Amino acid sequence: MTSRILTVTLNPAIDVTYRVDTLRPGETVRVPDVRSRAGGKGVNVAAVVRELGGESLVLALTTTRTPDEFRDGLDGLGLAHRLVPALPAVRRTVAVVTRTDGTTMLQENGFPAGETAETGILGALRAELATGAGAVVISGSVPEGLGADVPAKLVRLCVRHGVPVIADVSGAALREAAGSGAVLMPNEDELAELAGPDACRDLVAAGAPAVVATFGAEGAIAVTAEGAWRARPAEVVTGNSAGAGDAGAAALAMHLTGVSEVDWPAALADVVATSAAAVLRPVAGEIDAAARNRWIDAVKVERTR
Amino acid sequence: MTSRILTVTLNPAIDVTYRVDTLRPGETVRVPDVRSRAGGKGVNVAAVVRELGGESLVLALTTTRTPDEFRDGLDGLGLAHRLVPALPAVRRTVAVVTRTDGTTMLQENGFPAGETAETGILGALRAELATGAGAVVISGSVPEGLGADVPAKLVRLCVRHGVPVIADVSGAALREAAGSGAVLMPNEDELAELAGPDACRDLVAAGAPAVVATFGAEGAIAVTAEGAWRARPAEVVTGNSAGAGDAGAAALAMHLTGVSEVDWPAALADVVATSAAAVLRPVAGEIDAAARNRWIDAVKVERTR
Repeated sequence: MTSRILTVTLNPAIDVTYRVDTLRPGETVRVPDVRSRAGGKGVNVAAVVRELGGESLVLALTTTRTPDEFRDGLDGLGLAHRLVPALPAVRRTVAVVTRTDGTTMLQENGFPAGETAETGILGALRAELATGAGAVVISGSVPEGLGADVPAKLVRLCVRHGVPVIADVSGAALREAAGSGAVLMPNEDELAELAGPDACRDLVAAGAPAVVATFGAEGAIAVTAEGAWRARPAEVVTGNSAGAGDAGAAALAMHLTGVSEVDWPAALADVVATSAAAVLRPVAGEIDAAARNRWIDAVKVERTR
Repeated sequence: MTSRILTVTLNPAIDVTYRVDTLRPGETVRVPDVRSRAGGKGVNVAAVVRELGGESLVLALTTTRTPDEFRDGLDGLGLAHRLVPALPAVRRTVAVVTRTDGTTMLQENGFPAGETAETGILGALRAELATGAGAVVISGSVPEGLGADVPAKLVRLCVRHGVPVIADVSGAALREAAGSGAVLMPNEDELAELAGPDACRDLVAAGAPAVVATFGAEGAIAVTAEGAWRARPAEVVTGNSAGAGDAGAAALAMHLTGVSEVDWPAALADVVATSAAAVLRPVAGEIDAAARNRWIDAVKVERTR
């Protein structure tokens, strides 16, 4: 059985980084240093899977136009991909990195997906599941033009193939995915939107095999039908929190792959250590592997139920 | 004789506007409203020439790749163009427009021009001058890969064809263009870089037929071998100053077209009125025509030498 991890990105992005001295609202700043790379949460997950020693494949929507900067960017990152051209353009995110005021993120919502997007991405996932997958991670927002139920539909396709699946989605897509059979990975805000701290147990009662809720520097909790655990990081780290959740999803996916029963305390410790190791790196989709290895045994996991 | 005005843009741009509520350095903001258009100073000049009732042609470098968002953008604006594909990509400028903190501009420097850029743009200008031109405006920065003397070379080509030419350039390109025969349009900062307030007379002594220096809300001065004039706006206006200088260049170009002797007081009044009329519009390349017509006779012009 293959241990390959598929990631699904419905709302891909070109992540642009502007390095400037300072950013003062109302002023003009020249940007001498412009970098761009393929982005979107599933791309970050796939990149971290590779850093964790796993094999990954990026499934994503992309632009119908050529040249496709997103496709070229994935090639540049050396990430295997299967893309569905169904967007008029790939949105951009602009990270303005300053020396004094931290990083300001400007995130375009994305362009509306065309009519072929839903059948295209479902077909691509079906084909890749037939080839073999150890786990699937569905991440990020749903562009206009696609229903909020598309992540749930993708989840059900994985469940029918007997492949464990993680949904790191929010809002209406999270509510739709709640009973679909995915391990859910809400963050604090997304959890609050649902119903507060009891939401995890409600989601499990509704059919989620597990809920792994992440709380940044406070760590994470895992709730399943069998129990509940809380993990706190060994150290508080500061840095770039963009992509920390994606790194955690990558770590969790590795623990779901090829096992009949998940070792939840170990998986949760890995989620917390890998997320923190991502904060140390300036770019989403990368982790400080040495820090992760150092922290993974130092994370405190306690059973709470 | 044709009165068509050619504008030359060596460093074109895609001007992107993000409308958001607030921009706080260090935070993440979702951008629901993204607009983009073809930009660069020469494009703004051509658009204002059209608003002033003139005919314009945009000569510009552009990307070698297709689809070309810059070319499509000019078509969208309905501006005639002759483009030289010699850039790996067209840079972007991002204007973050807020309701409370004004507009923050992030201007990419631009991508390096390829080897064919110089011969390409000189050849394009030569061909269009042969077809006929009333005046030429050369505007904006010079991308990497092109010498700072390229605007001066473009100026000399116009001079050889007996066509009046305005150079709205800065830094090394302004110094190179100083003795080339162009009417120069430095702003306050560019003038200060040269030598301060006496720089205008020095530039005229060096061979510039005229120097029109613009000082924003303070108005503008014109210095020629025959005299010097100062014009002050009738009203102080606040708004979007991006593109005000380009509007002034468009007005000046109209006054240089098809005349054997320029009426400098009238031209200077028009530069000041048209620049101020551009400040009233939220987008570079547009003017409030009614305001311009109201102000043009109200601008106070005094002879200072």
